Amino acid sequence: MKLKAQPYDIEVGRYEVIINSMDAEEIGILAGDRVQVKNKDTITAVVETTDAIVIQGRIGIYREAWEAMKLVPDEIVDVLPAAKPKSVSFIRKKMDKQKLTSEEMFAIIEDISDGNLTEVELTAFVTSSYIYGMDADEIESMTRAMVKTGDQISFDTHPVMDHHSIGGVPGNKITLDVVPIVAAAGLLVPKTSSRAITGAGGSADLMEILCPVSFRADEIKKITTRIGGCIVWGGATNIAPADDKIISVEYPLSIDPHAQLLASVMAKKFAVGADTMVLDIPMGRETKVPTIQEGRKMARDFMELGDRLGMRVECALTYGSSPVGRAVGGGLEVREAMLLLEKNQAPRSFMEKTMAISGMMLEMGGVAAKGEGAKMASELVKSGRALAKFKEIIEVQGGDPNVTSDSVPVGDKVATVLSPQDGYIQEISNKRLVAVCRLAGAPHDKGAGIMIHKKKGEYVKKGDGLFTIYAEKEWKLDTAIKESLRDPIMYVEGMVLEKIQVV
Amino acid sequence: MKLKAQPYDIEVGRYEVIINSMDAEEIGILAGDRVQVKNKDTITAVVETTDAIVIQGRIGIYREAWEAMKLVPDEIVDVLPAAKPKSVSFIRKKMDKQKLTSEEMFAIIEDISDGNLTEVELTAFVTSSYIYGMDADEIESMTRAMVKTGDQISFDTHPVMDHHSIGGVPGNKITLDVVPIVAAAGLLVPKTSSRAITGAGGSADLMEILCPVSFRADEIKKITTRIGGCIVWGGATNIAPADDKIISVEYPLSIDPHAQLLASVMAKKFAVGADTMVLDIPMGRETKVPTIQEGRKMARDFMELGDRLGMRVECALTYGSSPVGRAVGGGLEVREAMLLLEKNQAPRSFMEKTMAISGMMLEMGGVAAKGEGAKMASELVKSGRALAKFKEIIEVQGGDPNVTSDSVPVGDKVATVLSPQDGYIQEISNKRLVAVCRLAGAPHDKGAGIMIHKKKGEYVKKGDGLFTIYAEKEWKLDTAIKESLRDPIMYVEGMVLEKIQVV
Repeated sequence: MKLKAQPYDIEVGRYEVIINSMDAEEIGILAGDRVQVKNKDTITAVVETTDAIVIQGRIGIYREAWEAMKLVPDEIVDVLPAAKPKSVSFIRKKMDKQKLTSEEMFAIIEDISDGNLTEVELTAFVTSSYIYGMDADEIESMTRAMVKTGDQISFDTHPVMDHHSIGGVPGNKITLDVVPIVAAAGLLVPKTSSRAITGAGGSADLMEILCPVSFRADEIKKITTRIGGCIVWGGATNIAPADDKIISVEYPLSIDPHAQLLASVMAKKFAVGADTMVLDIPMGRETKVPTIQEGRKMARDFMELGDRLGMRVECALTYGSSPVGRAVGGGLEVREAMLLLEKNQAPRSFMEKTMAISGMMLEMGGVAAKGEGAKMASELVKSGRALAKFKEIIEVQGGDPNVTSDSVPVGDKVATVLSPQDGYIQEISNKRLVAVCRLAGAPHDKGAGIMIHKKKGEYVKKGDGLFTIYAEKEWKLDTAIKESLRDPIMYVEGMVLEKIQVV
Repeated sequence: MKLKAQPYDIEVGRYEVIINSMDAEEIGILAGDRVQVKNKDTITAVVETTDAIVIQGRIGIYREAWEAMKLVPDEIVDVLPAAKPKSVSFIRKKMDKQKLTSEEMFAIIEDISDGNLTEVELTAFVTSSYIYGMDADEIESMTRAMVKTGDQISFDTHPVMDHHSIGGVPGNKITLDVVPIVAAAGLLVPKTSSRAITGAGGSADLMEILCPVSFRADEIKKITTRIGGCIVWGGATNIAPADDKIISVEYPLSIDPHAQLLASVMAKKFAVGADTMVLDIPMGRETKVPTIQEGRKMARDFMELGDRLGMRVECALTYGSSPVGRAVGGGLEVREAMLLLEKNQAPRSFMEKTMAISGMMLEMGGVAAKGEGAKMASELVKSGRALAKFKEIIEVQGGDPNVTSDSVPVGDKVATVLSPQDGYIQEISNKRLVAVCRLAGAPHDKGAGIMIHKKKGEYVKKGDGLFTIYAEKEWKLDTAIKESLRDPIMYVEGMVLEKIQVV
């Protein structure tokens, strides 16, 4: 059927068109079907139907398809029914609990990556993968498919180191220290990080306070080859692009399926050319891994997948029920991270974790003897070599290498919450902490966050400061204070919070 | 955050807005989250984000939300984060294999019906319901929720009769005869029918050849009260509106989950006030119910659900491996249906099925003695009372009561496919038959279809006509002929189709 094209200048993430219901019936298609749209080019697009917006004889064409076909308004196009992608039948297989071959998995991931699937089809895949899980073969296929359908880096020298935390614990700023320590020892560490989705700040959010973090794959290779390391935002690359599209469905459903977590992490590491990595698995109440049994299983699954991909993976089960260090959110975390490099000074939880993870990497990378890694890491900090490397990284990424922990800005709207009584801190809630940080403005407002003055098990007197909220805007500070009073972040024995003091 | 509104005149089936990613970050939301949008009114809308289409400081607002808020371009609105509907957490429960309470099911169906769910959330519900199925309690809750969230009819007198076929067999035009027969006996039969989705024509498509079929619930009640029956299109009513939205997800995934089928059928019957119904379950190869065991299970499930709803349900397992009658598609089917009423003349398969189903309804409705229903149905036809009632129905729905089977138009582009050899007809494929009918133009072109001359088991001589394809357009006829030669509809013993003749 010949139809007159009209543009709909909206991005939909795929080729999509909108046709009057009467024309759709004449063509013999329904909403959700595909059509071929032809001028001198031919594309396959998903069809929406309407009774009102597009009149008979016309076809509304969304931005991606419009640009791909280089259409002009009122151009005549030919519209024919087209088949669904084969991958839709493979999604049906998964819905019916059948195992997918690597070819089938590749077809699905490629169509996700290319935007060939509708939201319905993508969601059906994610939901059935969530329900049935995937076996080790399927996880390997998915990981390899994610790698192949995006940009890849390969380095001329080895080993290429990486580390990753599966997240879920606030204040986990260690990447800003681990990468320069490991690079200072002469190892390659092309670190891609994420931004916060539901947290107070990802490593990419933190590093962005000091320098740009958006680089292409070839730039990451160049920087890493030149100075040994980088800390960039994975989302700016075209590495494993299917992953983000899958996450766009998982996020609104608040799911984080095991198979997808494995494939997502390992695909990104594999694609940047890493062959040796340490995985940090924070465990405990209010983390993603509540028990040690689950932690061990996750470790085994990552190591097995690593084996299949030809990567050496070691895992660190870490304590995750309390924040790492005392700073949570943007500038506060960056200050804490820099202070460690500048003065070898840090809260014990943060110092120990940084040295432990760095030490494992130094040992795996073959530059420290077995059991000597943490000590070597500590020496790289004390000697100033790690700080120097960090400044090199900041500079090569386009930031100011003269930055110091003092000069990192934090919010000037602050309020300290005081203890209403004497007693021991019984509990700090990760979830509450993050919720209040976000109300204070994190991760968008880089100056927003919380400084914890007393940690679990510490003794406080009535009137001692428990924590200080930082914000850039008065109204966000107020909202954060109110929320922290409504439902406390920290519990002192028998506590009922009675007063707060704005300083 | 204050944003300047700009219209996006596209229907999306829900309140939806599009915001620049930077503004979304500032508000603290991601794509797929909800916001409250306020001027003097307040609505909750789903958020899309963009880096390009909508600049910072603006908010694109789709048609439904734009109209609900009565906005003018550049009007300033206030945009705040809003929570997801509670039903999303109930969908999560279903994804985790937990049983839903009736309150939870109601919340989900109500939000589906009101367009409060995104496509991702709706698909997650449909996919997990497909995978886990539903127990009898859940099916009952879903059915009741579908009824309550739409229009309902209740009649002052009882019984109120209905019948339904779960479909899957071509040529099943019996509604056009059953309804007037049953109404002629003085029973109420407010029949809502569907249009073809993947078939050659639904009863609503057929009836539309004779008269309008789009009526509101109150009009259905008025017509039925006045003359005993009607044959209308359910899709034009607001009866069980959630059902269509669920089907809009099932269709592109080519699934037809058992629980959803039960709830969908029974909700529509319950909502029109029916208390007594006959369910036709066509069985056999290439139907929805391949075996008698499955047919019996389906019958039991429908009867149990009927019990729970206070409806009397009887089921007829019918032969569905071959078409009902000899006509498939639009005008051809209407002719065959009318000829039965006009001259008591019909192919045996069609005649017997019509009388059997009508007879069951007459017995259940208490107007025929047990075992006498089919005979009474036949007498209502022979006496001309059923035809008179059919004409009354056509007239009250706005059609011409003087219509006869001869005057129903059929396509004037015809081709008869001849048998290439002597032998018995071994097989007629329902799926192939429907596929060729659709290529000939059905259901859109009302004159398109196939007339079958020889049925399964009949003996044919070389050169006998096997079937005739009717079309309104030459090119559709050509496509249909080619397809019927590429992959035959009917098999004669040892047949290789060799020639066709265009008459």
